[in-house]
Amino acid sequence: MYNQWIVEEIIKNALMEDMNYGDLTTDTLIDEHSMTKARMTAKEEGVIAGLPVAERVFHLIDGEICFIPFKKDGDTVKNGEDIAEIRGRTRSILKGERVALNLIQRMSGIATQARSYADAVRGYDTRIADTRKTTPGLRILEKYAVRVGGCYNHRFNLSDGVMIKDNHIKAVGSITKAIERARRHVPHTVKIEVEVETLEQLQEALEAKADIIMLDNMDTDTMKQAVAMAKGKVLLEASGNITKERLKEIAQLGIDVISVGALTHSVKAMDISLNIL
Amino acid sequence: MYNQWIVEEIIKNALMEDMNYGDLTTDTLIDEHSMTKARMTAKEEGVIAGLPVAERVFHLIDGEICFIPFKKDGDTVKNGEDIAEIRGRTRSILKGERVALNLIQRMSGIATQARSYADAVRGYDTRIADTRKTTPGLRILEKYAVRVGGCYNHRFNLSDGVMIKDNHIKAVGSITKAIERARRHVPHTVKIEVEVETLEQLQEALEAKADIIMLDNMDTDTMKQAVAMAKGKVLLEASGNITKERLKEIAQLGIDVISVGALTHSVKAMDISLNIL
Amino acid sequence: MYNQWIVEEIIKNALMEDMNYGDLTTDTLIDEHSMTKARMTAKEEGVIAGLPVAERVFHLIDGEICFIPFKKDGDTVKNGEDIAEIRGRTRSILKGERVALNLIQRMSGIATQARSYADAVRGYDTRIADTRKTTPGLRILEKYAVRVGGCYNHRFNLSDGVMIKDNHIKAVGSITKAIERARRHVPHTVKIEVEVETLEQLQEALEAKADIIMLDNMDTDTMKQAVAMAKGKVLLEASGNITKERLKEIAQLGIDVISVGALTHSVKAMDISLNIL
Amino acid sequence: MYNQWIVEEIIKNALMEDMNYGDLTTDTLIDEHSMTKARMTAKEEGVIAGLPVAERVFHLIDGEICFIPFKKDGDTVKNGEDIAEIRGRTRSILKGERVALNLIQRMSGIATQARSYADAVRGYDTRIADTRKTTPGLRILEKYAVRVGGCYNHRFNLSDGVMIKDNHIKAVGSITKAIERARRHVPHTVKIEVEVETLEQLQEALEAKADIIMLDNMDTDTMKQAVAMAKGKVLLEASGNITKERLKEIAQLGIDVISVGALTHSVKAMDISLNIL
Amino acid sequence: MYNQWIVEEIIKNALMEDMNYGDLTTDTLIDEHSMTKARMTAKEEGVIAGLPVAERVFHLIDGEICFIPFKKDGDTVKNGEDIAEIRGRTRSILKGERVALNLIQRMSGIATQARSYADAVRGYDTRIADTRKTTPGLRILEKYAVRVGGCYNHRFNLSDGVMIKDNHIKAVGSITKAIERARRHVPHTVKIEVEVETLEQLQEALEAKADIIMLDNMDTDTMKQAVAMAKGKVLLEASGNITKERLKEIAQLGIDVISVGALTHSVKAMDISLNIL
Amino acid sequence: MYNQWIVEEIIKNALMEDMNYGDLTTDTLIDEHSMTKARMTAKEEGVIAGLPVAERVFHLIDGEICFIPFKKDGDTVKNGEDIAEIRGRTRSILKGERVALNLIQRMSGIATQARSYADAVRGYDTRIADTRKTTPGLRILEKYAVRVGGCYNHRFNLSDGVMIKDNHIKAVGSITKAIERARRHVPHTVKIEVEVETLEQLQEALEAKADIIMLDNMDTDTMKQAVAMAKGKVLLEASGNITKERLKEIAQLGIDVISVGALTHSVKAMDISLNIL
Repeated sequence: MYNQWIVEEIIKNALMEDMNYGDLTTDTLIDEHSMTKARMTAKEEGVIAGLPVAERVFHLIDGEICFIPFKKDGDTVKNGEDIAEIRGRTRSILKGERVALNLIQRMSGIATQARSYADAVRGYDTRIADTRKTTPGLRILEKYAVRVGGCYNHRFNLSDGVMIKDNHIKAVGSITKAIERARRHVPHTVKIEVEVETLEQLQEALEAKADIIMLDNMDTDTMKQAVAMAKGKVLLEASGNITKERLKEIAQLGIDVISVGALTHSVKAMDISLNIL
Repeated sequence: MYNQWIVEEIIKNALMEDMNYGDLTTDTLIDEHSMTKARMTAKEEGVIAGLPVAERVFHLIDGEICFIPFKKDGDTVKNGEDIAEIRGRTRSILKGERVALNLIQRMSGIATQARSYADAVRGYDTRIADTRKTTPGLRILEKYAVRVGGCYNHRFNLSDGVMIKDNHIKAVGSITKAIERARRHVPHTVKIEVEVETLEQLQEALEAKADIIMLDNMDTDTMKQAVAMAKGKVLLEASGNITKERLKEIAQLGIDVISVGALTHSVKAMDISLNIL
Repeated sequence: MYNQWIVEEIIKNALMEDMNYGDLTTDTLIDEHSMTKARMTAKEEGVIAGLPVAERVFHLIDGEICFIPFKKDGDTVKNGEDIAEIRGRTRSILKGERVALNLIQRMSGIATQARSYADAVRGYDTRIADTRKTTPGLRILEKYAVRVGGCYNHRFNLSDGVMIKDNHIKAVGSITKAIERARRHVPHTVKIEVEVETLEQLQEALEAKADIIMLDNMDTDTMKQAVAMAKGKVLLEASGNITKERLKEIAQLGIDVISVGALTHSVKAMDISLNIL
Repeated sequence: MYNQWIVEEIIKNALMEDMNYGDLTTDTLIDEHSMTKARMTAKEEGVIAGLPVAERVFHLIDGEICFIPFKKDGDTVKNGEDIAEIRGRTRSILKGERVALNLIQRMSGIATQARSYADAVRGYDTRIADTRKTTPGLRILEKYAVRVGGCYNHRFNLSDGVMIKDNHIKAVGSITKAIERARRHVPHTVKIEVEVETLEQLQEALEAKADIIMLDNMDTDTMKQAVAMAKGKVLLEASGNITKERLKEIAQLGIDVISVGALTHSVKAMDISLNIL
Repeated sequence: MYNQWIVEEIIKNALMEDMNYGDLTTDTLIDEHSMTKARMTAKEEGVIAGLPVAERVFHLIDGEICFIPFKKDGDTVKNGEDIAEIRGRTRSILKGERVALNLIQRMSGIATQARSYADAVRGYDTRIADTRKTTPGLRILEKYAVRVGGCYNHRFNLSDGVMIKDNHIKAVGSITKAIERARRHVPHTVKIEVEVETLEQLQEALEAKADIIMLDNMDTDTMKQAVAMAKGKVLLEASGNITKERLKEIAQLGIDVISVGALTHSVKAMDISLNIL
Repeated sequence: MYNQWIVEEIIKNALMEDMNYGDLTTDTLIDEHSMTKARMTAKEEGVIAGLPVAERVFHLIDGEICFIPFKKDGDTVKNGEDIAEIRGRTRSILKGERVALNLIQRMSGIATQARSYADAVRGYDTRIADTRKTTPGLRILEKYAVRVGGCYNHRFNLSDGVMIKDNHIKAVGSITKAIERARRHVPHTVKIEVEVETLEQLQEALEAKADIIMLDNMDTDTMKQAVAMAKGKVLLEASGNITKERLKEIAQLGIDVISVGALTHSVKAMDISLNIL
């Protein structure tokens, strides 16, 4: 699913940020032996993502907290539905509340949006993929939430895929040279993707045997021609400020992948509350 | 302004996340001695925040990069306006591009929104404050962006202020007892804030000499009465899903502070691009 | 009480410092299965602080160590009284001995001294507070020990309180301007403290509505006048090389807080031994 | 002298502890371009230790600070003598002040005390050595201060020397067996020290060819006999609550080393102030 | 080339391991102002790799060291040839010597061996690739040395490529199902490699459209048939205890990649010395 | 045995290096509840070292893995013999496989080689010792493997022993001065070793009372004379490219220690496989 250690580091970091040397209010007012129960509840409709992360928040604070999920990641919830119950020391629950909510609200916000994008192309052989426009430090969780919502991941980072952009092409001289040079040097396990803006560039990239070709900011008609030229010979990816409204239209063309920065760069947190019972 | 070491840690962490063992494309295709210039340009109107952070991204990658800001944090920019020029090794600019943009776009998104909130109460003696609903790991930058936009910070974390909420009151028995117990134990340098939902609770908190009283989810009429009872004796803070539309109405009542989670929890990144010249 | 993670980091750091790649003597001479019991015993009278810290030292080395405290933090012990028993692997006990003692001796030394300061003002409505003159890296433990001894904490660090000193006043122009500027910018949750040396300054700080006024190095007569001017309008704090002998005299004046660097900056470790039974 | 990286880690850790997300007062009131000069001045007589450490504190905050020492580590200063001048950004000087003083005051306190111990045995072929009773996390600085004051270091930690104590002897069966077993297993580069309480044990340790024998808590007469038996055959170390008053008496006997926990475990910080000029 | 921060972390870690709290001999015997020159010299023939790493070792210890390489990575040197000159503080050179040599000797050992492997298939369109059998913690340097020697990298780690092995196939049910399931879930940017042991499996993997097929432990005849079946349709990789002697024979068959664990798992360090002039 | 925390840090670092954000293949193809058994088997004869390290690899990934060793460190195994069984989640076993093997193969390779060196001098009162020519970052494990194989450790690092080499002697002026200066300054717990190349130097070092004298690159005849001069007065260590063939010849002379860089600097990993049953 994901490397648990990276996620724990994120959580610990968030808790240190929110607590520093302690929780002055709770440590002063709540008896250390006081026990309680709390419920996490959806305040709007959406797709839940991050339950194991929220659980981990409480467990890292207090190994004896009991976290009982009523849903699992990917489930749709309605406004008012309970998502999980947390039992244990009142102090521990109050200390973890804000960080747990900050994480699960953001992740569920992403999953909810991803679900609506995935739904928009349902029935077509097109996947919606994310980008590297993620929140610094939270990429592993945001890419996970994208998958929970039914969309797909693009490369994780600069070291696990080649993406030849305009600037690289200019530096090397031509698309052909850039692809050849990349193929000669990078591991044979790595795919080579090229960004093209015209059909001429597409043709060149096809001949140079790119593995993936990204059609950058093309209008629908041009994309249609691109599909006619390249379909089946290469993976075709459309990108560039593609709104939810255009997704179906593009999917119908036969594009393999549509990558969408908005999946992660402007997230509306899902409204979720935690109430002590 | 902020502790530079924490910010560097955020940046370094983000760069490691985005690069892991290297930038396969750039290291393969761009000559290590190649030099270039690039421009950071606004693609929509907004308030810029994070220029020193973006500069630091490039400097941490390559101490010889020259970053020339055309604006300063807090400036308003229009669509198409250049924000900064970056000169230096092509490799270094390409490697830092995504992380620099991810940070400055998010921070400028927050500042832009904060500016519109601040404008809504301009002329009134009311400040708009943020909350702890920030992105895990990025609080220091987001609270900075809030200030850049003209709004104010609430407490930074659980250790630098007392905020007595419903659960704390229940645990101790009454508002009076909770305030007294807190005052007896916490440092004399710390203010005590209490969350109240009714005018009776407000009266009790006033008599127990809270330093700040948060009026939680009150309608405008009740708030009006609260101001009549408490104005000048205590700092009055309004909170609870307050939309931008209600801000002016509340400010007119004489409320001292309005705290708004939406300042940070659901940020629309400002559109900014970086182009190699 | 305190953020357990910071304390664990302190302990782990101390153990690494004391052990590096291993305990050459113990690993060579003591069988890894050998079990034993040990007692921690006071070798002089004092107030114990740090038992949970000592326990944590042994648990971090060996999760199976059984640490049985006979006292709790804040208890007074006499010379010869046993404080705790430790049972488990001989190797683990020998490896943790020095670090556990170094920590509990220092903390108990602080608590013992704090108790004698607290006793000196018993019956008066005056609290003795610590300062930032703590051992670098151990502030969280030393401030905890101060509280265990019955004294109080001042602000934890530079980010959780405003303290306007001479240099700040000079830079801004006047006490009034400094207070106003601080109030305009810092979070509304933060108290503003000003250091004054004369009654004129006190008057200015009162009028500018400081939250706390520190009377710096004043003689008893001047303090008396200060109390007459300000009592009830502001928190009054006395500071500046105040010896234990003067505490009662100052408390009698009605000063709210006396802050004392000596609580932490020159600690005599309490004599405590650990003996294998 | 010492591993600079460990010292930088100590300083950075201390600055983070004292600053967290920023210096609220200074960042609010002091202009970022304001420059100033400050002097570090002794407020009592003593031996200075830690000037390079104080310098490093300021340089880590601000690489452009100019730190001009008027003394060097090991120099004796009188009350009122200036130790160093610091020039640069007012903000940077104010932020580093407390941490720099906390470190140099503690180190100078140790050096001052070490000097008086060293003076007590001047003229004798006896060295005063420290122990592992150091402040957790600061051992490298405290052992350095001991040397600055003219005393000597014992082993740094559990991994760089063998010290066979009572518990080890009991576990193995006899001093002879313990020494033989240690010699058989530990690197040939490591000296083997044994703690003895009687002359019989001393004799056994001598015959087993210990490299160093520690005479634990012996009275002067017994030590005299020990010297008669062992002088020249082995290094003789006296230990066990030895007061400054007894040092000369013991040195006269011909003991090689006297180890004294009080050199570091109960330090009176030297009074040093920092004043903006 | 590689992420410089990871390499610096490796170097710093190595220096801490080798120095702990200081270099007792050098700090005691060498004057801190003493300057010297030293030469790094090959003591046997080989391919140099790691010069920038060795330079970084000295620069991390002392920013003022001047490191003058006489060769560049990839150059062949003879026994007795000077590789680099180092000028600067004697203390710094002596402290860095061992770590710099340990790194460059190991890296040059790998590069030398890689060169001989690359030479064995020169003239054929076959690349020799490394594996994940690298020294824990040093993968980034060892994979770099492999490239310096003229061989190629396989995937860097478990997250940047899919490699379906026997155990995965068994778990899913068939090669076809495993490939389909992988293709359905992993990013479209990732190649799918399958390990096969028979020609039947090869046929199945071909039909399921694997991107790379690894022929595991096949004899030459079977490989020949495999090439006949698959050449041009998929990348063919041979693996499994392939000795240097067999490389040419396999390359002649038309295999695209031969992966060899021995490139990194059993390295003979190249003999290189550092002498103070 | 060794400081477990350092070893855990090595393992965690290795797992992060090998996994980054996850194991794409295993997480995609293997059900998270799937359980399995695996065997670790020797593929050649040798001495096993690192079983507790391999166990720790799996436990750090998954606390519920059951690791059943059939051998213990130091045991000799034959080709085909099972070394351990691992039971638990298939995912966890597959994720830990490579790192566990990389560590145990390397450590067993060292132990196997050390055993053959130790056997070569069996019956003589001579120990074979390692050097600081270890793999950067893995010294603690490699020195442990050396001991498992029956050889001995030299000093661990630059801070726990004095080794006066040619360059130090030149800097100070003479062997005598170097030894005297070292003895005057370093802790009395530290042995002083001097490297000599001639019998004249040996004589000088003897008179200056070095604790250990290293005979650097001497031929057998000269060593014989050295033993005649120094045996019993000092520890004699032979060093300098000593092949396994010469070990017995040197041991016969009465040399105390022979230090051999090849014990760790050029390790042939022992062939060990892990198979899912």
